[in-house]
Amino acid sequence: MTDPETLADRVQEGDLRIHELEDHADHDTAAAARRLLVERESGTDLEAIGDYAFDAERAEPNIENMIGAAQVPMGVVGPVPVDGGAADGDHYLPLATTEGALLASVNRGLGVIRSAGGADARVTKNGMTRAPVFRVAGVAEAAETVDWVSQNLEALAEAAESTTSHGELLDVEPYVVGDSVYLRFAYDTKDAMGMNMATIATGEACELVEAETPASLVALSGNMCSDKKPAAINAVEGRGRSVTADAVIPGELVEDRLHTTADAIAEANTRKNLVGSAKAGSLGFNAHAANVVGAAFLATGQDEAQVVEAANTITTMDAREREDGTTDLYASVSLASLEVGTVGGGTKLPTQAEALDVLGLRGGGDPPGSNADALAEIIAVGALAGELSLLGALASNHLASAHEDLGR
Amino acid sequence: MTDPETLADRVQEGDLRIHELEDHADHDTAAAARRLLVERESGTDLEAIGDYAFDAERAEPNIENMIGAAQVPMGVVGPVPVDGGAADGDHYLPLATTEGALLASVNRGLGVIRSAGGADARVTKNGMTRAPVFRVAGVAEAAETVDWVSQNLEALAEAAESTTSHGELLDVEPYVVGDSVYLRFAYDTKDAMGMNMATIATGEACELVEAETPASLVALSGNMCSDKKPAAINAVEGRGRSVTADAVIPGELVEDRLHTTADAIAEANTRKNLVGSAKAGSLGFNAHAANVVGAAFLATGQDEAQVVEAANTITTMDAREREDGTTDLYASVSLASLEVGTVGGGTKLPTQAEALDVLGLRGGGDPPGSNADALAEIIAVGALAGELSLLGALASNHLASAHEDLGR
Amino acid sequence: MTDPETLADRVQEGDLRIHELEDHADHDTAAAARRLLVERESGTDLEAIGDYAFDAERAEPNIENMIGAAQVPMGVVGPVPVDGGAADGDHYLPLATTEGALLASVNRGLGVIRSAGGADARVTKNGMTRAPVFRVAGVAEAAETVDWVSQNLEALAEAAESTTSHGELLDVEPYVVGDSVYLRFAYDTKDAMGMNMATIATGEACELVEAETPASLVALSGNMCSDKKPAAINAVEGRGRSVTADAVIPGELVEDRLHTTADAIAEANTRKNLVGSAKAGSLGFNAHAANVVGAAFLATGQDEAQVVEAANTITTMDAREREDGTTDLYASVSLASLEVGTVGGGTKLPTQAEALDVLGLRGGGDPPGSNADALAEIIAVGALAGELSLLGALASNHLASAHEDLGR
Amino acid sequence: MTDPETLADRVQEGDLRIHELEDHADHDTAAAARRLLVERESGTDLEAIGDYAFDAERAEPNIENMIGAAQVPMGVVGPVPVDGGAADGDHYLPLATTEGALLASVNRGLGVIRSAGGADARVTKNGMTRAPVFRVAGVAEAAETVDWVSQNLEALAEAAESTTSHGELLDVEPYVVGDSVYLRFAYDTKDAMGMNMATIATGEACELVEAETPASLVALSGNMCSDKKPAAINAVEGRGRSVTADAVIPGELVEDRLHTTADAIAEANTRKNLVGSAKAGSLGFNAHAANVVGAAFLATGQDEAQVVEAANTITTMDAREREDGTTDLYASVSLASLEVGTVGGGTKLPTQAEALDVLGLRGGGDPPGSNADALAEIIAVGALAGELSLLGALASNHLASAHEDLGR
Repeated sequence: MTDPETLADRVQEGDLRIHELEDHADHDTAAAARRLLVERESGTDLEAIGDYAFDAERAEPNIENMIGAAQVPMGVVGPVPVDGGAADGDHYLPLATTEGALLASVNRGLGVIRSAGGADARVTKNGMTRAPVFRVAGVAEAAETVDWVSQNLEALAEAAESTTSHGELLDVEPYVVGDSVYLRFAYDTKDAMGMNMATIATGEACELVEAETPASLVALSGNMCSDKKPAAINAVEGRGRSVTADAVIPGELVEDRLHTTADAIAEANTRKNLVGSAKAGSLGFNAHAANVVGAAFLATGQDEAQVVEAANTITTMDAREREDGTTDLYASVSLASLEVGTVGGGTKLPTQAEALDVLGLRGGGDPPGSNADALAEIIAVGALAGELSLLGALASNHLASAHEDLGR
Repeated sequence: MTDPETLADRVQEGDLRIHELEDHADHDTAAAARRLLVERESGTDLEAIGDYAFDAERAEPNIENMIGAAQVPMGVVGPVPVDGGAADGDHYLPLATTEGALLASVNRGLGVIRSAGGADARVTKNGMTRAPVFRVAGVAEAAETVDWVSQNLEALAEAAESTTSHGELLDVEPYVVGDSVYLRFAYDTKDAMGMNMATIATGEACELVEAETPASLVALSGNMCSDKKPAAINAVEGRGRSVTADAVIPGELVEDRLHTTADAIAEANTRKNLVGSAKAGSLGFNAHAANVVGAAFLATGQDEAQVVEAANTITTMDAREREDGTTDLYASVSLASLEVGTVGGGTKLPTQAEALDVLGLRGGGDPPGSNADALAEIIAVGALAGELSLLGALASNHLASAHEDLGR
Repeated sequence: MTDPETLADRVQEGDLRIHELEDHADHDTAAAARRLLVERESGTDLEAIGDYAFDAERAEPNIENMIGAAQVPMGVVGPVPVDGGAADGDHYLPLATTEGALLASVNRGLGVIRSAGGADARVTKNGMTRAPVFRVAGVAEAAETVDWVSQNLEALAEAAESTTSHGELLDVEPYVVGDSVYLRFAYDTKDAMGMNMATIATGEACELVEAETPASLVALSGNMCSDKKPAAINAVEGRGRSVTADAVIPGELVEDRLHTTADAIAEANTRKNLVGSAKAGSLGFNAHAANVVGAAFLATGQDEAQVVEAANTITTMDAREREDGTTDLYASVSLASLEVGTVGGGTKLPTQAEALDVLGLRGGGDPPGSNADALAEIIAVGALAGELSLLGALASNHLASAHEDLGR
Repeated sequence: MTDPETLADRVQEGDLRIHELEDHADHDTAAAARRLLVERESGTDLEAIGDYAFDAERAEPNIENMIGAAQVPMGVVGPVPVDGGAADGDHYLPLATTEGALLASVNRGLGVIRSAGGADARVTKNGMTRAPVFRVAGVAEAAETVDWVSQNLEALAEAAESTTSHGELLDVEPYVVGDSVYLRFAYDTKDAMGMNMATIATGEACELVEAETPASLVALSGNMCSDKKPAAINAVEGRGRSVTADAVIPGELVEDRLHTTADAIAEANTRKNLVGSAKAGSLGFNAHAANVVGAAFLATGQDEAQVVEAANTITTMDAREREDGTTDLYASVSLASLEVGTVGGGTKLPTQAEALDVLGLRGGGDPPGSNADALAEIIAVGALAGELSLLGALASNHLASAHEDLGR
């Protein structure tokens, strides 16, 4: 029999190994057995973890040694009003987080943006990257390799694209450091976030490089990709989608709804997000874009570890004087390296797929890539709302305190 | 009656607003009504999102506009063998992720570390920071403010600590940029991650600064904290826990289990994690620490947006020659700014609390702070295992390919 | 005989080596011989290089293999009006450069600052740093070493200060990465730039560390100092002098003399120096501070290679509304790591010493350190003038072009 | 009469302004008058500054308000043995510095490199950049502008190249941040360092952009160039020449001449230049490349303020095992953004022109660009020698101290 108890006993007796349970029972039973084991060893009760809402087998591509699921509260903000290159109209955006007040804050910002007529958004660059590192004898061979690459982009594209029905090789950028050569391959991966596609395609292209040049592959990722690390190369050149969202908030709205002025918000943004981040040696010039990006990633099945670079955002807030003397607020967020997809990875899991359904963006878009573009634009507007709300609150407190000062 | 349908109708009729539902029904009913609304508007079915395993009311401190929960597959790796400053012995580490092969990879690394006798780990620095920005008239006032601060640390500590029963003010570091003064407050927040504690305490201290100096508060966070942004100040000076884990892997184990050599792993680490990240202008000198940090954060109820800086890791891998000529591998990870807690925030949610139970680290430690220290150390060893496994695989492929080359 | 010709012949015959000439003749003759050699081998005429205005012997501490001198045009800007912590009144500032229009531009800015009543300046932090790197067995020993250091700061100060009559150890900050421990020693080196003093003192302290802890010194500089590299640690924590200069320029002056407005200058500064530098992944948030710092360094005998970090500047330009509705300009520069001295190094060379005389800052100050502080403040005001002038020109062109647009 | 005394009197009487003297006398007399003025006001004697070795008129393109010259000791190192893409054979390299021991150290390194058969060097990338910033209404217009640019590269090249007989536009890379659009123009400027050429050409291209798109120019430099600031964009993408130099030093030489081993040097390089710089948040992963770059810049008339980014270097040092078991040292330096020229700017001044003559690289090369390429390669080998010498010394001390330890 392959009930959980028996399986757990057999592991404890050394008869089975904990990661082999799926070979001896269905996935849910295996997870139950594993819970039992952990419960016995740690003296705990994993009832909530075990009370997940999907067939364990469905998670097979996503996890090993499964014991159940983490459940993170999910809410919605919106409607998010977007006039984008791909997204259009109003969307509820699901966010999963444990940070209290986050959704309320984003919603406050969205309300202001809606009253202002909505936000614009555009994906201004798109390319998933993978950058293998090769070893050469020295710079003479490095230069030879770089030359060969620049003269054989078509052959590299052919090799790379032979592994994928969707991906297109956009560019290969070479970098030389001593006897290491880095080749940064960039792909249009359409509606997939595309790391796997890019990795497999690059692996194939690397064989060509190794066959035709003196270069020898050391690692398929040489960290100039750069995946899950906060790297300037992504902040400067982008990775995944580079997306900007912006809105002009009429001065009256700033006053009525945010209880402050465009000038005060601009000042807070400059001192905090620009000068403060500059002094901190930061790659992130924003207030809390990571909160929105992280919560949207979790809700929609994106790679949570990519929040590291996906949250890389420059926020600008400037006063714009109208001809009638009123001062409006121009607010923008520019996310340099937002890696998102609507197919593959975690997007197929039940709660995540439903969240994409709420956005109307589950699966491949028409044309290909348009769903991921739209998701990027909607997340960007969500981040814009979060920035607007927080900076408005800071500026409003500041004004309040200034008034108190005057009242003394 | 306050059944979900009625509530949803009333929102659609404009009679209620979507965020007010909890005022008219219990939390689960409110969430159900909200799901209904979203389902109607987006033509979807939110069955899985609605099938969560906890009382919605329990999530009230964590979310607004709740519709249910995101469910992310959770597994365990381990046992994680730690000889730490706070952690000791073997622990199963729960990880929640959608990234297939991650747990298998970490487990492979942990197996090697166990065979090598386990890993050491130490928290080498601890301090949760909050850095308000003040406005002054110019540098003359800035210098005056900085002087006052450096001479009144005790008064600032008294003010700050009046707001908390656990937190201790460790230091206040001033920075001047033109007419902006940034004061970086650092606290020992014990077993809490401590952002809220630090924010409230700093708010109180700011009132003293405003009363006694010409400085006027602009924002309670001036981005030199730096929270949820990838900033050098955290990578250099730390935030939350600075923690290092390391292990010496005997050459025989490197060969038998990772099918490569210490020299080959060291080479891959140097070209990829050191030189590649250097060339990329990165603050992250590692292979994929964010994967382990992110998955552990999600499982144990940490702030997912803090993965941005918490994953900031330098990985070193060096060959060490033994007297008998054998070459062992020294492997380490140093995470500069790992913000973790075992009380507060998301740690109270059911699946997250159970995950902390598995580690034996739920709630406050004895002495205070020891549970969060231990959690930091265990996560660090998990990250070490992930690095070891991935770099071993890269080096092994490289060796395999080198052998092929020779075979031609 | 030791005339240049004979010496040159002997080198060519292999009888002497080119760097040994000073052992066989006075320094000027040795330099002449060396010129002859180079002239013969390269078929050139080094007349200008040989026409230097000092005894070659005087340059012995500064150069080996001397052939003469590079002559760089020197001019003056000013008077520079400073209300500083150490500097006071009006000073001509000598600048040596080959960049045409630089002095004219700085002078234009200084003229505006003078009309505005001068600039304030303050050194807000002071400390020359040296950071050796030690090897330990692993993090357990690293933690032990860090503990010992934090408990023995007085003993370290005693050891360090035993090597110097002027320097004072201010602080030792430990950093751990795997099996490397970095200790960043910071000194008050008074009127000396202080690298040598800091290096020698740290060397002595390192012996104590090695004697009392398991740590073994690998390099007296472990690059966390960080000398002559553009490192965030200096931009954040400072090195040498952290100095800010600022001025408020009345709106009328901005209009009459810079032909633009405070708002237009603030906009140019934000888009270029703040947002542009942010997007570029820069540690320098200024227009061309390096021009002034570099030219002042060359004129006054500072270390030209330290321009790398000494030029690290954040420039802010903000509109400030007066009660009468006029908009003034607040302009500031904050240089985080300006390493300057008025004794030692290149300051003793004739033209450099004269340049310091022009400033009234040659040699040690009273109190010690005040001359170097004053030099830092004056250079900062010079940099401020350069920024003001350039941004004024940009804003003015922009306005002009905007007017043209309107005229069409 | 226009003798210096009379001119000085007239300035003091308010009859003339200090910068107008060249209108009333020859350049040398004007400089003499200016010295007199400064001498009177500061009570100093500027004899050495006034004893310069060139006609003041010759410096007119390089300085305003000239009073004389700064004289910096110049020596030579070498011969520098280069097998480059442009440079070939042995060259004496003139260096001007006030840093004692620098030339001796570089010479020691060069001696080792010569014994090892010389160094390879290659310029792997070349492009002088200028990046104007434009204002648009928002991201919709930004996207429109970016589209136009990507479709009109030929028209932009035609406009840009209409201003120059030598420069070629290589590429225009667009970046969007909110309502700012940055266009990074890259040029092949042949033997000129090329900032002026690039600026003028870009100015012309900007007029086309303004005429054809909604974008309005704010500043001809938007700091993404990035000139004289330490920016990741240059470290990653290069500016001016990206150049690598390397050499393999046989183990015997490492032992005999540097008194250490390849392994010890590799260890010092890893802990200091790679890990130490990583922890410092640095863009410079080297020991003291700025010393050599700065001294070569000063000697050969380069822009001293560009040392900031020109010194941006990654140094690698690795042990390479030979088949016979001997361990050699592979040493390299990669300078990402070395801005050099052999025509224009300071290269025409007498001592600087002579220094270029020593290298055989004065003026334009054949083919155009080859002289500047060769200069870059020779400087890179000089930097390599400096790194090798210093790291060798560190490793040797370390070994010595290790031996002492064993002796106890």
